[in-house]
Amino acid sequence: MCDGAADRCRLTTASKLEAVAIETELVKEYRFGKQQLMEIWGHACAIGIVKAFPLTSLGKRQPTVLVVCGPEQNGCIGLVCARHLRMFEYAPTIFYPKRSPSPLHQDSMVQCERMDIPFLSYLPTEVQLINGAYNLVVDAIVGPEMDPADLKEPYTGILLTLKQVKIPIASLDLPSGWEVEGDNTDGINPDVLISLMAPKKCAAGFSGKHFLAGRFLPFDIQRKYELNLPECSGTDCLVEL
Amino acid sequence: MCDGAADRCRLTTASKLEAVAIETELVKEYRFGKQQLMEIWGHACAIGIVKAFPLTSLGKRQPTVLVVCGPEQNGCIGLVCARHLRMFEYAPTIFYPKRSPSPLHQDSMVQCERMDIPFLSYLPTEVQLINGAYNLVVDAIVGPEMDPADLKEPYTGILLTLKQVKIPIASLDLPSGWEVEGDNTDGINPDVLISLMAPKKCAAGFSGKHFLAGRFLPFDIQRKYELNLPECSGTDCLVEL
Repeated sequence: MCDGAADRCRLTTASKLEAVAIETELVKEYRFGKQQLMEIWGHACAIGIVKAFPLTSLGKRQPTVLVVCGPEQNGCIGLVCARHLRMFEYAPTIFYPKRSPSPLHQDSMVQCERMDIPFLSYLPTEVQLINGAYNLVVDAIVGPEMDPADLKEPYTGILLTLKQVKIPIASLDLPSGWEVEGDNTDGINPDVLISLMAPKKCAAGFSGKHFLAGRFLPFDIQRKYELNLPECSGTDCLVEL
Repeated sequence: MCDGAADRCRLTTASKLEAVAIETELVKEYRFGKQQLMEIWGHACAIGIVKAFPLTSLGKRQPTVLVVCGPEQNGCIGLVCARHLRMFEYAPTIFYPKRSPSPLHQDSMVQCERMDIPFLSYLPTEVQLINGAYNLVVDAIVGPEMDPADLKEPYTGILLTLKQVKIPIASLDLPSGWEVEGDNTDGINPDVLISLMAPKKCAAGFSGKHFLAGRFLPFDIQRKYELNLPECSGTDCLVEL
């Protein structure tokens, strides 16, 4: 863990353009594959969730986790995260209402299905059912790649439901519905945020438990974008800010 | 760590056919991608090396590691391992004498090059130079996919050199040159072995530090092949046997 407020201030946050530029550079210049990035990020997110919600801390009899996956990249990271949570002895259930036809998503989905991770056919609108069944919700609906104004049903309805749940929410990369650079007081209010590569600008005001999974980033990229990432210890792939 | 001798006895070892069958099933049935598997395995191998040779334990001033990569899959795992070692603050140098044209290898190589990991143009035959320059050698020359009898130059010569080095060797998946199911008293003698998925039959007699990186394996595969993998703790991706 870094030294709290002081380090947090020195930490660079990324604009939407910077977030896109870093990922493009990783893929084009460093030849990282999308599948490889999904694996690195989904794995790191699962580890962040274990750190924030250890098995022994869960209130319910079963270590249930609801993972809500969107149609784009953030959703695919959610699928990979769910698979790793299963390996870490959690009991994830996935809600993935619009299945992307991309092989990346399809393969990740098959991996989850073949590992007997159940998929919900619909999300209960009665939030008591969600509060009662799960220990927490993983929000993998949308990342910085999409403008929240472009969000449509069923995701706008899902976000309304998530704003009412009483169990903790852990958001991957960005709380879904938040604008990367905006004021998001009206959005969902996650307890945990796992930023990928660099915290986005909107995360500067986030007051929950905040992890950063950026260790895999080549040092030249860290320098070029002045990311000023705090050091991870040992072989950890993420650090608590 | 598992309970030593007793657990080691109960642990199932895999024949060459079984090792191939498990990987084929992962790719065909579970839709794991090769790039994804390389990332998982290379990352796990790097963590095994950190566990066996922590930075603070290294005798030389610089945390140098020589990673010797073969032309097939084992070599690609070595490239990924080298990249993660770099992120863990080690100073890897890669010797990769025959570069595979496959995009998987090419991309991994570019990732290493762009992270300023140096590539050796030849391996000194004077072993004193190797002993003097590096803290350890990572052997990623050949895995169970190739019959050692099919090994040609430059690898036969490299193995002769590695048999003479005095610094420790860590082998990935299988000590290079060992037959999966054979008696290998004449081969190299690594200090550390990081078995992937399941220890191969020949590892039953291995007396060095032995890690198993199989946690990502779907439970159905573990059961089907009666792998009887020891439990990993927390979010660890490998376990010491």
